Amino acid sequence: MRFGILSPNCRKERFIGQAMTQISTKPPSGMRDFLPEEIARRRYVIGRVREIYEQYGFQPIETPSIENLSTLVGKYGEEGDQLLYRILHRRDALRRALDEEQVQEADLADLGLRYDLTVPLARVIAQYGNLPRFFKRYQIQPVWRADRPGRGRFREFYQCDVDVTGTSSLLAETDVLSAVARVLQSLGFEDFTIQVNHRKLLTMMISSVGIDLADEESALVAVDKLGKIGEEGVLKELDQRGIEGPKAEALLQLIATDKTEDNAAIAARLSSALGSDKADTAIAQLIEIIETSATGPAAGRLRLSPGLARGLGYYTGPIFEITVDDLAGSLGGGGRYDDLVGMFGKQAVPAVGFSLGLERILLVMEERGMYPPLQVGPQLVLCSMGVDTSQVFKVAEELRQQGLRVEIYPEPAKLGKQLQYADSDGVRAPCAAILGEDELENGSLTLKALASGAQETVPVSEVAARLGALLDAPPAD
Amino acid sequence: MRFGILSPNCRKERFIGQAMTQISTKPPSGMRDFLPEEIARRRYVIGRVREIYEQYGFQPIETPSIENLSTLVGKYGEEGDQLLYRILHRRDALRRALDEEQVQEADLADLGLRYDLTVPLARVIAQYGNLPRFFKRYQIQPVWRADRPGRGRFREFYQCDVDVTGTSSLLAETDVLSAVARVLQSLGFEDFTIQVNHRKLLTMMISSVGIDLADEESALVAVDKLGKIGEEGVLKELDQRGIEGPKAEALLQLIATDKTEDNAAIAARLSSALGSDKADTAIAQLIEIIETSATGPAAGRLRLSPGLARGLGYYTGPIFEITVDDLAGSLGGGGRYDDLVGMFGKQAVPAVGFSLGLERILLVMEERGMYPPLQVGPQLVLCSMGVDTSQVFKVAEELRQQGLRVEIYPEPAKLGKQLQYADSDGVRAPCAAILGEDELENGSLTLKALASGAQETVPVSEVAARLGALLDAPPAD
Repeated sequence: MRFGILSPNCRKERFIGQAMTQISTKPPSGMRDFLPEEIARRRYVIGRVREIYEQYGFQPIETPSIENLSTLVGKYGEEGDQLLYRILHRRDALRRALDEEQVQEADLADLGLRYDLTVPLARVIAQYGNLPRFFKRYQIQPVWRADRPGRGRFREFYQCDVDVTGTSSLLAETDVLSAVARVLQSLGFEDFTIQVNHRKLLTMMISSVGIDLADEESALVAVDKLGKIGEEGVLKELDQRGIEGPKAEALLQLIATDKTEDNAAIAARLSSALGSDKADTAIAQLIEIIETSATGPAAGRLRLSPGLARGLGYYTGPIFEITVDDLAGSLGGGGRYDDLVGMFGKQAVPAVGFSLGLERILLVMEERGMYPPLQVGPQLVLCSMGVDTSQVFKVAEELRQQGLRVEIYPEPAKLGKQLQYADSDGVRAPCAAILGEDELENGSLTLKALASGAQETVPVSEVAARLGALLDAPPAD
Repeated sequence: MRFGILSPNCRKERFIGQAMTQISTKPPSGMRDFLPEEIARRRYVIGRVREIYEQYGFQPIETPSIENLSTLVGKYGEEGDQLLYRILHRRDALRRALDEEQVQEADLADLGLRYDLTVPLARVIAQYGNLPRFFKRYQIQPVWRADRPGRGRFREFYQCDVDVTGTSSLLAETDVLSAVARVLQSLGFEDFTIQVNHRKLLTMMISSVGIDLADEESALVAVDKLGKIGEEGVLKELDQRGIEGPKAEALLQLIATDKTEDNAAIAARLSSALGSDKADTAIAQLIEIIETSATGPAAGRLRLSPGLARGLGYYTGPIFEITVDDLAGSLGGGGRYDDLVGMFGKQAVPAVGFSLGLERILLVMEERGMYPPLQVGPQLVLCSMGVDTSQVFKVAEELRQQGLRVEIYPEPAKLGKQLQYADSDGVRAPCAAILGEDELENGSLTLKALASGAQETVPVSEVAARLGALLDAPPAD
C-alpha cells in the first residue's frame, strides 16, 4: 500500500525529548488533507464527471468561494442558514462592530462561504446578460457547511452540479438525469435508483391530510429524514414540530410505498387519494420524465417516491435523489427551481439541476473496490554514483522530455540506499535508473525494475520505449 | 467572441418595470466568476503545470480551505497576519464570545482561510509519518488574502506550488527551479528572469550598514517593494520605519545592481563588501544553484539580485522570484524554509519550494495572446422537427457514445430558431444536427456546418467520423 489519507503521526514518538508546543497539526474538524493516492482517486472520478457532463452539452463555470451573505441567507431553508460559515469583519469594520454597545452576529460579517453551487449559479444567471438562452452549465467545486461530520459527510466537500436554465421544458429534467445516470454508469455503478417526486405534490399531500400549510416547510424537514430515521423517527419529529398524530400518520400513509408497487400503481394511488387536477398535472410531469428517459442511461432507474422531500427551500417542481442500498443518504439530488433566479430581483428564469456528491461517490467506490489501477508518483528514480550533478540534471531532462515522470535522488548516498528509497512507501517507483561513470560515458542508463529485480542497460534516448518491456520481464533469479 | 468573464448585466434594462430588490448579483470585491471560455484558459494552464510538475517527480496533495488559526498566525510576517480571513464562531461559541464584557477579535474566531500553500504543507509534513523521506509535492489550489485588489491581484487566487522536503541539498533548489522554468517555457514564455538571493545575505547586508537586527524584518518589508515603488519609495518607507537616511542609502547601494554586472561580478562585489566567511558561504550556495541549473530549462535565466527580499517571514536560505518585463510584481516566488516544519513543535525538516501565481501567468498570457485555440462548448446542437422526444434522446445518446459533445435543443421550435440558437453567443456550436421524420426513418442525421453552411446527410453511426471533413468543407454558395 502506498500512503493514503489517514495516517497518524509516527514521528512523534521519536522526538519525545524535544520541546513540543501545542499547535495541532491535524486539519480542523470535518476537514481533510488529501495525499497523492487519494488525489489520484478524486481526479479519476472528477475527470469522468467532466467528460460525461461535457458530452451531454454542459459547459463549466466556477464561482468564488466567498459570497455576499445577502446572496446566501434565506435560500436554504430553516436549517441551512444556521450551517453557513461567515467571514469575520476586519480592521475598521470590525472595530466599528465591536464598539457597539450590544454586539450582534449581523454586525460582525457580511461575507460567507459557498454553501452549494445552485444559488451562486442563480446569481450568475441574474448577473451576466450574454449567457446562452438555455444555459447548460456544470460546476465542480467545494462547498462548506458547519454540519456535524459523519460517514461520508464533511464540512468541506465537493459537489458536481449540472443545471439547465432558461426553459420550463421537461426535456431539461431528462437531460440532467441522463447525464448523472451516465456518470454513475461510467464509474461502474449498476444498482442505483433515481427517486423522483414533485414539490407541488408534497404540498398537496400535506394539505390533503389537514396539516396547516404554514407548517409545510417544517413538516418537509421532518419527512425528508424518512430514509435516515425511519417512520417512527419521522412521526416523533412531526410531533415535536406540533403536527398532530392522526395527521402525521395520514401523511406517512400517503407517502409510504410498497416495494411491489410499480410507478403506474403509485401514480394511480396518489391520483385517487389527492383527487385534483393540479395533482394529476404534477403526476403527469413525473410520468413524462420517466417515459422520455426510457431510451437513455436513466432508463429503468426512476422510481416515484412520494416521501422524497429534499431539504432545500428553493425547489418548485420535480425533485430527485439518487440512492444505492449500501449508503444511508444519497449520492446526490436535485430538482426544478423556477423562482430562485427571480429572487435576485431580476427576470424570473426557470431552471432545473442535479448535484452529485463527490465524497459519497468516492466512499462507495472505495468500499466496493471500484477503482481501476491508478498511476501515482514517479516512474523512475534517477540514482547516480560519482557523476557531476549538472550531468545528472541533464540526463533527467532528457528522460522528462520523453514524457517520463522522473525523480532525482537529491543527496550523495550509496547506491543501495538510493535504490531502497526508490522502492520505499510513498515513492514506490516501479523502476530505478542508475547513472554511473560508465553509463555517462556511453550515453546510457542501467534500468532496474524494483519489483522483479530485472535489469538492463539502455541508451538514454530509448528509456521510455524500453521501460514497459523491462517492467513486464519475469523476476530475476 | 464567446462570452468571457466580465460582462455586465444587459438584462436589467429589459425589466425596469419589475420590482427589484437590492441583492447585488456581483461577486464580492476581489472575487471573480469564471464563465466557460475563461475556464478553458485556466484549465489549459493548470493542465500544463500539472503535467510538467509530475514529469519532475512531484506528487499532488490538497489541503483544506479552512485551517486552525493557530496554524496560520505568526507564519507570514507583519503584514500577513492582517490579511488573513477569519471564520466567525457559530452558535454557542459565538454566544459565549458576545457575552463577554469586552468582545475581542481573538474571542470571535479560531479558524481562518488558507493564506498560502506552504504553511499547510509544513503542517502536513509534521502530521503524517508515512510520507517519503524526500517528499516532492505539488499543490494547485486557491488561497485567500484580504489584500487591496489590483491588476492581476485578487482576494481569491490560485497558487501552483512545488516543494521538496527532507533535504538540505541544493539539488532540491535546482530541481524546483528547473520545474517552474519548464512550466513557463511549455506555456510559451521565453523572456523570464529568475531572480535569486539568500536570506542570510540580506541579514548580513542589513547588519553591515549598521541597521539594528531588531529592525531586520521591518527593513525587509520595505526593501521587498523595490520593484514596485522604486529606490525613492523604499528610502521613504525605510525612513518611516525609523531607519536613518545614511544607513538606508548604504543598504540601497549594496543591493542596487547595474544591468552590465554579470552574476560573477555581483558575487565578487558582495563578497568584498561583506567580507565574511558566512557571506561567502551564502554566495557560494547561490553560485552552485546557478551552475547546477546550467544543463536544464533554467539555464541562463538565473540572476543574482541582492535586493530581492520576499515578504514572507519563513524563509531561511536561498530565495527566488520570477519576473517578466511587462508585469510589475512577479509570476511567482519561493525559497528555502528550513525552520517552518519545526514550528509545529515536532522534528525540524528542511524544505525548499516555489509558488507560481496562476492569475499572473494568465494575465500575461492573455495580454500577449499566448493561448492556443481552446475548445469550448458543444460540438453539435441536435435540432429536431416532429420527432418524439424519447427518439431525440436516443439519437443524442448514440452521438454521445461516439464521444461527441452534444446539446439537445430543449423546446418545440421552428428549425430556423433552433439553428439560430446553435450559432448564438455562448453556444457557438460549429455544427447543428437536424433530426426530422425522414432522418429518423433512415437512421440518419442532416449535419449543417454553421460557419460555412455546408450540409450533408449521414448515418447516425458515422457522425463523429464525418464531422471533421464537413467542417473543413468550403463555404456553400
